Amino acid sequence: MADTKTRIVVKSGELFRRHGYVGTGLKQIAAEAAAPFGSIYHFFPGGKQELAAEVIRRSGQMYEDLVMGVLGRADNAVDAMRVGFGAAAQLLVETEYADACPIAMVALEVASTNEALRAVTAEVFASWTDAGAGVFVGWGFPPDVARRLSVAFILALEGAFVLARTLRDTEPLEVAAATMIDTIRAAERA
Amino acid sequence: MADTKTRIVVKSGELFRRHGYVGTGLKQIAAEAAAPFGSIYHFFPGGKQELAAEVIRRSGQMYEDLVMGVLGRADNAVDAMRVGFGAAAQLLVETEYADACPIAMVALEVASTNEALRAVTAEVFASWTDAGAGVFVGWGFPPDVARRLSVAFILALEGAFVLARTLRDTEPLEVAAATMIDTIRAAERA
Repeated sequence: MADTKTRIVVKSGELFRRHGYVGTGLKQIAAEAAAPFGSIYHFFPGGKQELAAEVIRRSGQMYEDLVMGVLGRADNAVDAMRVGFGAAAQLLVETEYADACPIAMVALEVASTNEALRAVTAEVFASWTDAGAGVFVGWGFPPDVARRLSVAFILALEGAFVLARTLRDTEPLEVAAATMIDTIRAAERA
Repeated sequence: MADTKTRIVVKSGELFRRHGYVGTGLKQIAAEAAAPFGSIYHFFPGGKQELAAEVIRRSGQMYEDLVMGVLGRADNAVDAMRVGFGAAAQLLVETEYADACPIAMVALEVASTNEALRAVTAEVFASWTDAGAGVFVGWGFPPDVARRLSVAFILALEGAFVLARTLRDTEPLEVAAATMIDTIRAAERA
């Protein structure tokens, strides 16, 4: 069994992803993490907000490693889009459309209501953008084009997740992949 | 002053968009709508869930009318993307990145936790897809291509909103427009 702090962070991540930041209570986290309630404040003296910041950073980094790992193993950008969106679609189906971006819902919740946590979610998206740009540079795109394609990829993934989870259908991920392939080919011609 | 039911629905829409479905309480709605608490159950015997379903349907329809109205006034699909994402960017800046898709956050909140409301949000996205496909057909695309472009547009808008609100930057909307223009031109060539 993982140590108490890790259990708190992991379980909070699952709860935030499913019920959101506002919809998750510290008592629920303590119960599901099999941790004494007081241990949350021991590890996170700032309470729920400090815990959420840690969860956003860690799950953001894990998701970045996962997604960029999948993309980076492809030989070229077009194949990477097919493999990447295909893997995302498979994971959605296997988890009954629950397992998508770990921070999107929290990002929308805090965007206009909690400046400290908004800044943390912004750091995560900025880090994904940099990492994605690096992957596109590795396929031979100039840095400015690579950066644009990285932003395009992340927004396509986020938007496709909103639609796919709502519609319980993988079509938006297939459309996102096709759109990205069109914009990649346009960039290659330019 | 609008009638009580309308005030409840409009104020709920603002609160759900800003604080989410879970994060908004009926007492808060009653107070901000200047409505007696009991009037919510008078108009919505099913309580918060029935009220939310009405809010999602109405704000979904209003947003569909707004967005499709903006797109439909353009002479062609490429111009429509420039105008549409440009207008969205302007509205975001004017509202300090608060006013984006009226149902995205609620859609993510309910996707895995409230099947009745998930179905309502799915109806809204399906209606937007149909309406958008009609607009692309009007610009001369065959129905299957028009449908794909409509899905691509909606997911690009949703994904760009997640990033733009989080980053407090309109760049994702500009990238989304550029990506859509690439995929539209590829469809025109095909």
